Amino acid sequence: MVSEKQSHGAPIPVSLSDIADRCGGELIGESAHVVTRVASIGNATKDSLTFLASPKHIVTAGDTLAGVVLLKPEHQALVSGNKILVDDPYLAYAMVSNLFVHTSADLPQGIHNTACINQSVVLGKSARIGAGVVIENGCVIGEGVMIGHGSVVEAHCHIGDLTHVESSVTLCANSRIGMRCVISPGVVIGSSGFGYAPEGKKWRKIHQLGAVVIGDDVDIGANTTIDRGAIDNTVIGDRVKLDNQIQIAHNVQVGDDTIMAGCVAIAGSAVIGKRCQLGGRASVLGHLTIADDVVLNANAFVSQSIKQAGIYSSMIPVQPIRQWRKTVAHLNRLEKLAASIKKTGK
Amino acid sequence: MVSEKQSHGAPIPVSLSDIADRCGGELIGESAHVVTRVASIGNATKDSLTFLASPKHIVTAGDTLAGVVLLKPEHQALVSGNKILVDDPYLAYAMVSNLFVHTSADLPQGIHNTACINQSVVLGKSARIGAGVVIENGCVIGEGVMIGHGSVVEAHCHIGDLTHVESSVTLCANSRIGMRCVISPGVVIGSSGFGYAPEGKKWRKIHQLGAVVIGDDVDIGANTTIDRGAIDNTVIGDRVKLDNQIQIAHNVQVGDDTIMAGCVAIAGSAVIGKRCQLGGRASVLGHLTIADDVVLNANAFVSQSIKQAGIYSSMIPVQPIRQWRKTVAHLNRLEKLAASIKKTGK
Amino acid sequence: MVSEKQSHGAPIPVSLSDIADRCGGELIGESAHVVTRVASIGNATKDSLTFLASPKHIVTAGDTLAGVVLLKPEHQALVSGNKILVDDPYLAYAMVSNLFVHTSADLPQGIHNTACINQSVVLGKSARIGAGVVIENGCVIGEGVMIGHGSVVEAHCHIGDLTHVESSVTLCANSRIGMRCVISPGVVIGSSGFGYAPEGKKWRKIHQLGAVVIGDDVDIGANTTIDRGAIDNTVIGDRVKLDNQIQIAHNVQVGDDTIMAGCVAIAGSAVIGKRCQLGGRASVLGHLTIADDVVLNANAFVSQSIKQAGIYSSMIPVQPIRQWRKTVAHLNRLEKLAASIKKTGK
Repeated sequence: MVSEKQSHGAPIPVSLSDIADRCGGELIGESAHVVTRVASIGNATKDSLTFLASPKHIVTAGDTLAGVVLLKPEHQALVSGNKILVDDPYLAYAMVSNLFVHTSADLPQGIHNTACINQSVVLGKSARIGAGVVIENGCVIGEGVMIGHGSVVEAHCHIGDLTHVESSVTLCANSRIGMRCVISPGVVIGSSGFGYAPEGKKWRKIHQLGAVVIGDDVDIGANTTIDRGAIDNTVIGDRVKLDNQIQIAHNVQVGDDTIMAGCVAIAGSAVIGKRCQLGGRASVLGHLTIADDVVLNANAFVSQSIKQAGIYSSMIPVQPIRQWRKTVAHLNRLEKLAASIKKTGK
Repeated sequence: MVSEKQSHGAPIPVSLSDIADRCGGELIGESAHVVTRVASIGNATKDSLTFLASPKHIVTAGDTLAGVVLLKPEHQALVSGNKILVDDPYLAYAMVSNLFVHTSADLPQGIHNTACINQSVVLGKSARIGAGVVIENGCVIGEGVMIGHGSVVEAHCHIGDLTHVESSVTLCANSRIGMRCVISPGVVIGSSGFGYAPEGKKWRKIHQLGAVVIGDDVDIGANTTIDRGAIDNTVIGDRVKLDNQIQIAHNVQVGDDTIMAGCVAIAGSAVIGKRCQLGGRASVLGHLTIADDVVLNANAFVSQSIKQAGIYSSMIPVQPIRQWRKTVAHLNRLEKLAASIKKTGK
Repeated sequence: MVSEKQSHGAPIPVSLSDIADRCGGELIGESAHVVTRVASIGNATKDSLTFLASPKHIVTAGDTLAGVVLLKPEHQALVSGNKILVDDPYLAYAMVSNLFVHTSADLPQGIHNTACINQSVVLGKSARIGAGVVIENGCVIGEGVMIGHGSVVEAHCHIGDLTHVESSVTLCANSRIGMRCVISPGVVIGSSGFGYAPEGKKWRKIHQLGAVVIGDDVDIGANTTIDRGAIDNTVIGDRVKLDNQIQIAHNVQVGDDTIMAGCVAIAGSAVIGKRCQLGGRASVLGHLTIADDVVLNANAFVSQSIKQAGIYSSMIPVQPIRQWRKTVAHLNRLEKLAASIKKTGK
């Protein structure tokens, strides 16, 4: 057992004036009052920040005990205590939410004495490297980078400034991650693409020679996998946000500002546009192109390229089982049904 | 290389009287006979326990060579050898199955010399901590806890007595796990929820300030992910059983005794009732409520709250491709079909 | 921090005669010319190998700057530079692709000084064992095996000659892997099957006593999970290829030469035939049997056994949301529609 001291911060009091500054709102009330946590509007106490974003909370807003409420100017009369007027309370909350990250897994600056870092690695001075981390030869790790415990960074990876690689991440050889990214635990980047050529009844492996290139300000959720390209690279644009357990196959390209919810799967060589929004478990077949600004609803299944922005859906909601069985039976008889109509119509 | 001695147990002979005691059955036969393994009724030999639970095995039960058979009283005449009479043979088998866990990854008591445990950690005396394990500051680890090789327990986690965290697990900061849980390899608990506020065409991250709270006797399968809450916590009830590769988003609540098969996905803030059964790859959209005792069949897609117990389904089984193409074509022409009927009917 | 030297190879020049030998093709051109990389036909330069496999590249093939092109004899007139004539250019490329793996995570021979290997382990002399690797008692590791950084091999596992276990893999106790397999990062093999017997309103765990047995030449993609059997084993045949994030439940059997794309899920005790091809996110319910040579299209949902080879499908492609809403509404009224037709028809 390797003993060690490590100190994480306690809750930090934040003054209302600091909050107003951060989100650019107009403070009405005690600028020196401090809050230390965030709560929903019904649970908030004197030491809490809250926000009024949903119309359903308007009726109870007057009862809140919050130390301060972020709200729209037109709702200010609802709240008698401290308040900060903003155009978009939810966005304002997003802007100040990081002030309240009071206990984190953030590591102390420096390199843990159990980390294994190849001599050839170029490592930013302010990097924080956790226990058991392995960084292989030829890697370039930027300033302010954090690499959490147990993560593996294979040969010739590049990690941009201020990126956080959390615990238990695997970056395979040659992966390039931009600046200010957050890579969640269990993520695998740069694993072998799934490429085989048929050889009679067997499958001959095609060695995957490309890499993964990820832009700046990208977030990647837990246990998501992104394969390296077959020849060219797999490319994830700037500001892309990927939730948990997403599968991105080899040579996929994802445009800037696209966001994908949990369990999305994108097959090989698909090209996803900019500013797309993919709902949970949406899937896109290989070699398709999805235009910019396409919204795929949850579980949407895309088997042809989509050339026009818009909202697309294909998923059938549940029914009680007896009703559903009838629906399926009728669905399977659709051809007969159509034929009988044709006949009847005559 | 760190050399080490470690010994795991060999198969342990179990006497038929011990088995009968454990499952509360009536033994007919040699109480001193011992068995060392479990087998299906067709493969069983003199050293095997087996059970007769499925009607399809009744015809061959008489031929079994098993050292002992768990069966219902009404089937006792089928078997001439040793038998134990029980009301529910499958449940009785479940009750005795742990007697036959002869080779496991269970660690020896103590802390491996490569583990990194912060000085502030409160650690139960009988804990077993594997190689390369990291436990950050402020954690409280109960009595009899096992933490497998390579697992990371970030700051301020609590793990209840007798819980087994297997190899390669990541518990992010502030996660709370109850007693007697089993967390399988590759699980990530407490990773950042997926929360962004739109800011023009971009996405502004909402820092996720809640935690994950897991009850007692919960099992979590390999590579499952459970995100921490945005403000409040993500909560998993007592005795919940989660299979592999399940995705539980931020602020989800799962009621006691609910069970979910592999690849289920629950979107943010959904509330799942007690004693629900979710089939493989079922999915529930965000902010919905599912009543107690709801059964979702495999691949069921829930897009509205379900207020009543019952069985729900939405998945269409495969057809041969030519037939399926026609079905889809007719489905896409349903509107015209309906219109033509209306016309015909006039 | 443990400092270390490690050297990975630089690009290795490959002569055209070596390439022709490897793929059995006829070289026309400079046999001594060397290339060092692979490129698509449009991006290729003098130092690149490329291939002409897709008809859509025929029109531009004449413009390629490639150092050598793999192509069919009937296309040889299209290319004036060096060329190698082969029957199947894509297969030929697959055969030579491994010559161009110039930067890899391959470890140097030997055992990293931070690895923990139990004294009882039988380890092939030429094995390469990465940093922080744990190998528990009773394991047998073949010749030429690589085990990447941070991987855990629990007790009594067997790993066949020349198999590569990449970084961050977890092999639970008793797993048996054949020869020449590749196990990608984040894979979990041998985790507990999901087995519970109902006990009133609760679930009683059935301890999972089987193991996982994997054949030779099997590839397993990142974050895929394969559970151990309940009593008998989970069995993966020879030359099976599994992509990322696949879930294989307990007691599944997968036949030789079957290939599965990303996110496939196979429920417990299903038996998948030989030479099957499962598209992305296909799923098969428990206890079903799928014949040899079955092709399941992407997202296919199989709820009954398939006894005949062929192509099966069940997934409905997306429509624009307004159109889709109408389709679902009509689908939900199918029963009424059928009834009204019956009436009309009279």
